[in-house]
Amino acid sequence: MPYVVDTEALVKRYLDTVATGTSADVAALYSEDATLEDPVGGGEVHIGRQAIQRFYTALDAAELSTELLSFRSGGHEAAFAFGITVGGAMRIEPIEVMTFDRDGLITSMKAYWSQADVTML
Amino acid sequence: MPYVVDTEALVKRYLDTVATGTSADVAALYSEDATLEDPVGGGEVHIGRQAIQRFYTALDAAELSTELLSFRSGGHEAAFAFGITVGGAMRIEPIEVMTFDRDGLITSMKAYWSQADVTML
Repeated sequence: MPYVVDTEALVKRYLDTVATGTSADVAALYSEDATLEDPVGGGEVHIGRQAIQRFYTALDAAELSTELLSFRSGGHEAAFAFGITVGGAMRIEPIEVMTFDRDGLITSMKAYWSQADVTML
Repeated sequence: MPYVVDTEALVKRYLDTVATGTSADVAALYSEDATLEDPVGGGEVHIGRQAIQRFYTALDAAELSTELLSFRSGGHEAAFAFGITVGGAMRIEPIEVMTFDRDGLITSMKAYWSQADVTML
């Protein structure tokens, strides 16, 4: 059955949660069997909400801010560019692609970025 | 076996070929069994080089220019934003995601955009 989700609102909620929430809060935005690859090409895909929470744990100690730079919808998928500033010292500007289930949970996330997209502030 | 391809050069070649080549030229950049979804969420996936050439045939009659706006590498994948101007009358700014094989051929392309990303000039 086709379904409609407001992917732009879901992406904004994700970026807000990355900035202000805990790793558990961010992991709760993912479906139980979601996959996460960040960076794409890095050779590691995190599978399942528990592994995804572990991935975000590194962010728990850091002061983070996020900014949506551009957004493209694609049905229940989306691609977007954003900036993330870590500890006021480093800014990364990835492009991410996400897919969402009918409940608005993230079923897959892929983050495209490399050292070329990292700026020391 | 892992492999390395210069995805930024391949993306630039693709955008140049879309602007100046024929549908056959663009299709030749794809692998025999490649898939193309444009726009993502549109409900149609074109499978195979012949179907992909048919998809690009609509562009054969149009005056096109393309401009790479931002590029993110991800191993043998890439995500990028670009502008495409059609007949000097319409500009679309999609985000595309591509995967490449070891020969540098495109094995999958997904284009994320909607009416919100179309400007009449």
